Amino acid sequence: MNGAQALIRTLVDSGVDVCFMNPGTSEMHFVAALDDVREMRGVLALFEGVATGAADGYARMADKPAAVLLHLGPGLGNGLANLHNARKGHTPVVNIVGDHATYHKQYDAQLESDIETVAANVSTWIRTSASVEEVAADAADAVAVASGPPAQIATLILPADVSWTEGATPASPVAPAEPTPVDADAVAAIAAVLQGDEPAALFVGGRACRADALVDASRVANATGTKLLAETFPARIERGAGRVPVERLAYLAEFAAMQLDGLRHLVLVDSKAPVSFFAYPGKASDLVPEGCTVHVLADASGDPAAALAALADAVGAPADGATIQAEARPELPTGPLTADGVCQALGALLPEGAIVSDEGNTSGLFAAGHTAGAPAHDWMTLTGGAIGQGLPAAVGAAVACPDRKVVVLESDGSAMYTVQSWWTMAREQLDVVTILFNNASYAVLNMELNRVGATEGGPKAKEMLDLTRPTMDFVSIAQGCGVPATRATTAEEFVEQLRSALATPGPSVIEAIVPSII
Amino acid sequence: MNGAQALIRTLVDSGVDVCFMNPGTSEMHFVAALDDVREMRGVLALFEGVATGAADGYARMADKPAAVLLHLGPGLGNGLANLHNARKGHTPVVNIVGDHATYHKQYDAQLESDIETVAANVSTWIRTSASVEEVAADAADAVAVASGPPAQIATLILPADVSWTEGATPASPVAPAEPTPVDADAVAAIAAVLQGDEPAALFVGGRACRADALVDASRVANATGTKLLAETFPARIERGAGRVPVERLAYLAEFAAMQLDGLRHLVLVDSKAPVSFFAYPGKASDLVPEGCTVHVLADASGDPAAALAALADAVGAPADGATIQAEARPELPTGPLTADGVCQALGALLPEGAIVSDEGNTSGLFAAGHTAGAPAHDWMTLTGGAIGQGLPAAVGAAVACPDRKVVVLESDGSAMYTVQSWWTMAREQLDVVTILFNNASYAVLNMELNRVGATEGGPKAKEMLDLTRPTMDFVSIAQGCGVPATRATTAEEFVEQLRSALATPGPSVIEAIVPSII
Repeated sequence: MNGAQALIRTLVDSGVDVCFMNPGTSEMHFVAALDDVREMRGVLALFEGVATGAADGYARMADKPAAVLLHLGPGLGNGLANLHNARKGHTPVVNIVGDHATYHKQYDAQLESDIETVAANVSTWIRTSASVEEVAADAADAVAVASGPPAQIATLILPADVSWTEGATPASPVAPAEPTPVDADAVAAIAAVLQGDEPAALFVGGRACRADALVDASRVANATGTKLLAETFPARIERGAGRVPVERLAYLAEFAAMQLDGLRHLVLVDSKAPVSFFAYPGKASDLVPEGCTVHVLADASGDPAAALAALADAVGAPADGATIQAEARPELPTGPLTADGVCQALGALLPEGAIVSDEGNTSGLFAAGHTAGAPAHDWMTLTGGAIGQGLPAAVGAAVACPDRKVVVLESDGSAMYTVQSWWTMAREQLDVVTILFNNASYAVLNMELNRVGATEGGPKAKEMLDLTRPTMDFVSIAQGCGVPATRATTAEEFVEQLRSALATPGPSVIEAIVPSII
Repeated sequence: MNGAQALIRTLVDSGVDVCFMNPGTSEMHFVAALDDVREMRGVLALFEGVATGAADGYARMADKPAAVLLHLGPGLGNGLANLHNARKGHTPVVNIVGDHATYHKQYDAQLESDIETVAANVSTWIRTSASVEEVAADAADAVAVASGPPAQIATLILPADVSWTEGATPASPVAPAEPTPVDADAVAAIAAVLQGDEPAALFVGGRACRADALVDASRVANATGTKLLAETFPARIERGAGRVPVERLAYLAEFAAMQLDGLRHLVLVDSKAPVSFFAYPGKASDLVPEGCTVHVLADASGDPAAALAALADAVGAPADGATIQAEARPELPTGPLTADGVCQALGALLPEGAIVSDEGNTSGLFAAGHTAGAPAHDWMTLTGGAIGQGLPAAVGAAVACPDRKVVVLESDGSAMYTVQSWWTMAREQLDVVTILFNNASYAVLNMELNRVGATEGGPKAKEMLDLTRPTMDFVSIAQGCGVPATRATTAEEFVEQLRSALATPGPSVIEAIVPSII
């Protein structure tokens, strides 16, 4: 058994049985070994950012890591943006980067580069497998470290000769870390604060955004008169009818400041204290109000669900004390198509159990509102701000949950970073409907140009934020990647196309021509 | 004047007047300043790899750096692969990476990451502008360092508040380094070796692949019975009728070994000693034959053209002693379309002064042979092995040389990494003909799978190298990006489409459906 075979066998034995990949010559033995360890599913991506984003989406839904296989430093570079998003969302990823053979590195061949420096941007655990005797144990360690808590990106650098050399033995799975136990003193102290008179909020993120944890959070909030807020960009929030409705902190610091205004206590539950997404001249970066004390109930190393359950007990919240969202769907939209109308149609038609991958940016602003009372569904957002995440995450979610419909809210600017995702959707016949908002601009940047105080923007500046000349035709691009696609310019057309796409298994793209809301 | 305005003014005063960019919020003041310093041309790319590859192609043709503007760590990650190619080709690039405001970094906002570690993969000169007082001088230094020799990637990290703060003053240009003087002793010693009886070769690369330098190299070779070889992947080689024909070292180590067999002396001229592109089990990585002495006439810090001229003098080569390529074009191909036929048509029709960006990989293997006697033209290759370079480099070359026709030889697998290039070609109406070889496979990897000894490859492995299910339709993708496109399945169709594309200004794409040569 060679190193690659033992590595893949170890991954499978450790529960990692999907690998999103864009391999090159140095990974050919890994690729060949897929036929020896048949439980490992290889999913080909035509660009590394698709592979890494898919691994992120997969793990958000599967609650276990996938592997990615990348080709040397440049391949890792191409995959970095979506690994960044995974890191910020505390998503586990086993990030395997093929390297030259150990003895070949000294020659500084064309593809030689410093892989570890690049990996350090996203990984605190980076290991180069030194020999065929060690590679399987390295793989088992990587899975355990990635799984957490805290979940993270574990980067395993795999020299080609370690892959191809015979004499490897699979390693046994390594148990991941136990979560930090719930701190009874902290729970008691926070309970006392929440039962006091000062305005307070529970600020939930990460794994505290799952349905059961939110029920306990809502019980606490209702029993103590505490506000319940979720982080701006949760990796996965379980929502819709029958679940707890949660307001998310606004992206724009001005609005977030209003949501937080007057608070004296902010309790973090697998979230971090809110800060402005970007800095703006003359505006505060730290959004925690003056005089507000920040408390930590659980962090990424802990067990937020157990901590919330303990807190609910501590405040004596009744078992049925949570606020539960009633089913409520908007009317179907009519007339000229707008971003709001698209979101309204989504709210009217979203099927039960759907997974929404939301990178709608400005156009998607209305989506959360219109779908609040739709049947229970999961919502994934852009955790790290590196755009080009929505389509790949949908690929991964669809691989993780083949029985659920995935809907991507994608915007024109963001789509173009990882548009190759559509090809993988076609190849794997993934059940994904892409709703592509085409407003022919980097709308969010038109807004930001003003918000950062950079004047109104002259003609040359505006040109850099404009996506016309030429306007992209996403129907053609999608079809070119093998995905059936249609275009909607009226609400009626969009509704009909969305109905049809939701009723048809497999991938499809609907290009919604909408005016910019900015 | 704010920091961004002073920075751009300084770049322009230092000769850098094109910026390929994919900006975000933290770069909005840079973008706004384009209207204040109107000599700077901003060229928008929809993906960072297009921007960095375009800067590479631009500098290869303009012989001076362009700037690129990227958005934080993820943007740099997306641009890294083509910066890697530029680094390996010794191409100058002023790599500007926007960052959060200095005071904002402590909050670890969503887009916060360690930019310097990523930059270290491609840059030995990395500077974070610390204040508005320093930013202009930093920019002048960056241009000088990038320009070299040795030419390199200079990375300037630009915090948003340094951009937006008032009080900056433009800086004067900084003179770049002088090349290392030609070493008369080394010239004399090498001349003696070449005039001796032992088999020797001149191995030219980098700036030694320009027309004038090659004339001197050929004079030396002919006067001394020395073999003349060029590196496998030159950044830019000037060739065709009226120029010196030069054999390039083969990509496959087996063939390269034959070209180098029996040599006792190898003289490097702005090149590095040949090594195998990848390692293969049981095969040598170092391609310099046993017993062959390596001599350095000039390196990337020197002046290879002057060194070759001095060497020609030292060996007493006659002024007209160079071998000059006669004009010779192949016949037009007929019948079913093949990769060879495409290259034959290119040789028959390539216009004088054309620039060829060659990422044809396996399908492009015949291109050099069929175009050897075409009218004088420039040829750019994939210097660092990170695929997705051909289309962006063509963007940059076309911006640098608006009066010359650019032809891209691109393969299906490679095209998909930076396919967004077509949109920039359409927006800027660049005069670029893309010849897209569609053989529906990662053909080079099918070859490599066998070469690395990874068995024949089972069905799961083969699947990872196969680009069918679905076959991509590049006509649709190109049209979706705003570029007119046609498809050719016979040689006659291809010839007609190529004639038409060459005769029509502006971008076009021809998808050539060809069988894989592997």
